[in-house]
Amino acid sequence: MRVMRIVDIITRKRDGHELSTDDIRWFIQRYTDELVTDYQAAALMMAIYLRGMTPRETVDLTLAMARSGDWVDLHHVVPYAVDKHSSGGVGDKTSLVVLPLVAACGVPVAKMSGRGLGFSGGTLDKMESITGWSPSVPISRFREQIEEIGFVLAGQTGNLAPADGKLYALRDVTATVSSIPLIAASIMSKKLAAGADGIVLDVKVGSGAFMKSVDQARQLAQTMVGIGRDAGRDTVALLANMNQPLGYAIGNSLETAEAIRTLQNDPDTPPDFWHHCQEIAAHMILLAKAADTIDQAKQRVIQVRDSGHGLEKFRAMTVAQGGDGALIDDPSRFEPAPIVKTLVATHSGYINQIDTDQIGWTCVRMGGGRAEKSDHIDPSVGLIIRLKVGDYVNQGDPLAVIHARTVETQADAEIALQSAIHIGNEPTTPLPQFYGVVQ
Amino acid sequence: MRVMRIVDIITRKRDGHELSTDDIRWFIQRYTDELVTDYQAAALMMAIYLRGMTPRETVDLTLAMARSGDWVDLHHVVPYAVDKHSSGGVGDKTSLVVLPLVAACGVPVAKMSGRGLGFSGGTLDKMESITGWSPSVPISRFREQIEEIGFVLAGQTGNLAPADGKLYALRDVTATVSSIPLIAASIMSKKLAAGADGIVLDVKVGSGAFMKSVDQARQLAQTMVGIGRDAGRDTVALLANMNQPLGYAIGNSLETAEAIRTLQNDPDTPPDFWHHCQEIAAHMILLAKAADTIDQAKQRVIQVRDSGHGLEKFRAMTVAQGGDGALIDDPSRFEPAPIVKTLVATHSGYINQIDTDQIGWTCVRMGGGRAEKSDHIDPSVGLIIRLKVGDYVNQGDPLAVIHARTVETQADAEIALQSAIHIGNEPTTPLPQFYGVVQ
Repeated sequence: MRVMRIVDIITRKRDGHELSTDDIRWFIQRYTDELVTDYQAAALMMAIYLRGMTPRETVDLTLAMARSGDWVDLHHVVPYAVDKHSSGGVGDKTSLVVLPLVAACGVPVAKMSGRGLGFSGGTLDKMESITGWSPSVPISRFREQIEEIGFVLAGQTGNLAPADGKLYALRDVTATVSSIPLIAASIMSKKLAAGADGIVLDVKVGSGAFMKSVDQARQLAQTMVGIGRDAGRDTVALLANMNQPLGYAIGNSLETAEAIRTLQNDPDTPPDFWHHCQEIAAHMILLAKAADTIDQAKQRVIQVRDSGHGLEKFRAMTVAQGGDGALIDDPSRFEPAPIVKTLVATHSGYINQIDTDQIGWTCVRMGGGRAEKSDHIDPSVGLIIRLKVGDYVNQGDPLAVIHARTVETQADAEIALQSAIHIGNEPTTPLPQFYGVVQ
Repeated sequence: MRVMRIVDIITRKRDGHELSTDDIRWFIQRYTDELVTDYQAAALMMAIYLRGMTPRETVDLTLAMARSGDWVDLHHVVPYAVDKHSSGGVGDKTSLVVLPLVAACGVPVAKMSGRGLGFSGGTLDKMESITGWSPSVPISRFREQIEEIGFVLAGQTGNLAPADGKLYALRDVTATVSSIPLIAASIMSKKLAAGADGIVLDVKVGSGAFMKSVDQARQLAQTMVGIGRDAGRDTVALLANMNQPLGYAIGNSLETAEAIRTLQNDPDTPPDFWHHCQEIAAHMILLAKAADTIDQAKQRVIQVRDSGHGLEKFRAMTVAQGGDGALIDDPSRFEPAPIVKTLVATHSGYINQIDTDQIGWTCVRMGGGRAEKSDHIDPSVGLIIRLKVGDYVNQGDPLAVIHARTVETQADAEIALQSAIHIGNEPTTPLPQFYGVVQ
C-alpha cells in the first residue's frame, strides 16, 4: 500500500491536479523517514517543477518541511524574533551591517546564518575572515549574549527542516532547483522552523541572482510573503537589483572590511550598499515595532550608524564570539592576498552591462567561494570593482583591483573581468537599486 | 564532469529542448552501467513524460536501449525472422493460435515470449498450464527444433535490452509508464534486440488495454512503425478493439484450451478471436513474403487451420518442449478448478458496456494473474464470458461461468462481474473488431 500511495501522489501531480494537505504531509514525513525513495521524490520534484503548485500546496509543503525537524522558539530570549533572508547575490555583505544596526536600535537579534555556495557568498564565511570568530555559540551562552549585547550571529544548529536539506540536495542533482514554489518553500521552511516572528526577505534579481527577471523575483517574493502570512508571521520582501555587484568588494575579508568601514561611516564606502542596508534594516525595525513609519525607521538606522552604536554592537558580538576586535578597529589589518593588481580599461566608454554571475564565479575560481560544498575558502582573495553601470571610463582607468593567491587565478580573473564588464559607446542609464516592496 | 552532464541533459529535456543522439546514447550507456543514479533517471523520465520526445529522439532511445545488451541474429536458424507483439489485453491468447499457423504456412517461427503482469496475461503463463511444457530451450536444441518443426516458443533468454528492463522497473514506481514514446521505445527495443526482420504489432485499444482511446493507440502504433522503419525492419501495426475480452475464455488453462479448440476448428469457439488470429497471422505471412496479398495470406491461414496443419505444429512444438500431447488431443483433460459456477443475469437487456480491465483484475484476484511480479499463478481458475457488447440477455440467462479455487474468490468474482457487465434498455451496436492498420 505504501508504494501505491506515493505513485498515486506522483500521478496526481504529473496530471496537473492539486495535491491535498494529507498528500503533502505524508510525502514529507515518509521522505524524511527514508520510507519514500529518492527516485520517487525526484519524479515528484520534476512533476512539481513542470506542473507548478497552487499557493495552498506551497504553504502546505513549507509547513510540512518546517515541521520535519526541530521547532525553535526564541521567546525565552527575545520578545519578538526578527529575521532577514537574502536570496543570494554577489558582494552581498548586508547582514554584517544590518544586524548590528537593528540591535543598536534596541531590537534584539538572534540570527542563524548560512554558508555560500556557487556565485553567491555566505555570511558565516565572511565573518570567519575575522581571526578567532566562531559561529558556534553554546546554548548556555546564547541567552547571556542576547541579554548583554542583544546580538548573536550563529550557524544553523540542531535539526532545522531536515526534509528541506534532503530535498534540496536531491533537487540540486536532478535539475529541479529553479522552481518558484520549491525555492519559496525551501527558504520559508527554515525561517519558520528557526522561530522568526518577523521576516524581511531581500530578494535579489538580475544576472548575479538566482532570479533573472523582475517578474520571476516578484512571483517568488509574493509566494514567500503569502506563506509567511498564512503561517502567522509578519513578512515583507524587497526586490533588489543584482545586475551589478552590491558595493565594491567581492571576497570574504574584502567584504567584511567594507562592512566594517560602512559601520565606521568611512566616506570611501559604496553608497549603493549603504542605501541597501538602510532599507533592509528599516523594514526589520518597523516589523519589530521599534519605529512607527519606514521614514522614522530609516532615521533611527542613520542615527545609530552615525553615533557609532552599530559598530559597537558589531564589535561586541565579534569579541563575544572569539573574534579579534583589533580587526574591527582597523580593517586594514586583514591579511592581504599575495598578489594585488589593478586591471585597467582597454578602451573608453560607458559601462553598459556587468555579467554579475561571471564576477561571482571568478571569485569562486580564485578560491573565494565554493563550487562544491566541501571546498575550502581562501578569505583574502577577491575583487574590488568600484564602477557601476552607467559610469564612464577612459582607456587606462582602473576597472577592478584583483586580490589573488596565484598568478594563474590572477590571469584568469583578468580575462574573465574584461569580458564580464561591457564597455560601449552609448550612454547607459544607471540601474535602479530596488524594484519595489511586496507585503 | 559526469554529474554536470546528466544534470545538463535533464535540464534540456525539462526546458522542452530536443536531446541529441549523443545525449541519449550517453544516458542509456551510463544508466545501464549504473553510473547515472536512479533518481536522476527518474527526473529525466518525468521530464520526458511531460515534455514528450520527437520521432528522432524516440528512435535514438530505442536503438540505444536495443544496443545496451545482447544483439540476437537469427539468420543462422531462419532466413527471415518474423515476430509479433501484443500491447496486452484480456483473453488475449492470440500467439498460441497465430504462431503455429504461420509455421504451418512454411514460415519458420523462433519466438521469445513474456509473462503476464496486472490485468494482461502472458503467453508463457498460458503455455505452462500444459503439464511438462517448458519455455527453456537449450541453445543446442533451438536450431534442431527450428529445422525439424519450424517452431520454437521460448522465454526471453540472455541479456536483451537490459537498459529497458532497468528503466521499465523505475518507470513502474515513478508514475512514468504511460508515455507513448517511452512505451514505444520499450517494446521496439526488445524486438530489435531479439533480431526480428519483420514485426506485426497487435495494438490493443479500449478499457482492457493500456491505451484507452483510438487516438492514443494510433499514435503509439505510428511511433512504433516509424521506429521499425528507421531501424530497417518491416513493421505493421493493427489497432484492435479491447473494449470486451478477446474470445470467451480468460484464465490460463481455459485460454489454452480455447486456443487448441480454435486450431481444432471446433464450431463452439469464438468467431471474434478466430477473426483476430487470421488478421495477425496473415500480416506475418505477408511480411515474410509467403503470400502476395493480404487476402491470399488469409486464405492460406484458413487452409492450414482447416487441414489440421496448424494444430500439428502446435502439438509438435509442445511435445518437443516437454509438454503433454494428450492435452492437445483433448483439451477437456485440463485440470478443472474446484468450483465451477454459472452466474446469471439479474435483469433483461442489452449488453452495452463491459469494463474489460475489471474482468482482467477479477481473474488476477482469483489467482489467475499477477499483481506483483513474484506472484504464483493458478492455471485452472478464470472466467468464460460468451456475451459480447450488443447481445441481448434475458433475466436468468447465463452471464459468465466462474472457475474458482475458493468460495471467497468465487463470491468476489460474482460481485465484480455483475458491476463490470453493464445491461441496459437501449439496443447497442456491436463493437468493431479493428480500428485500422498502420504501416
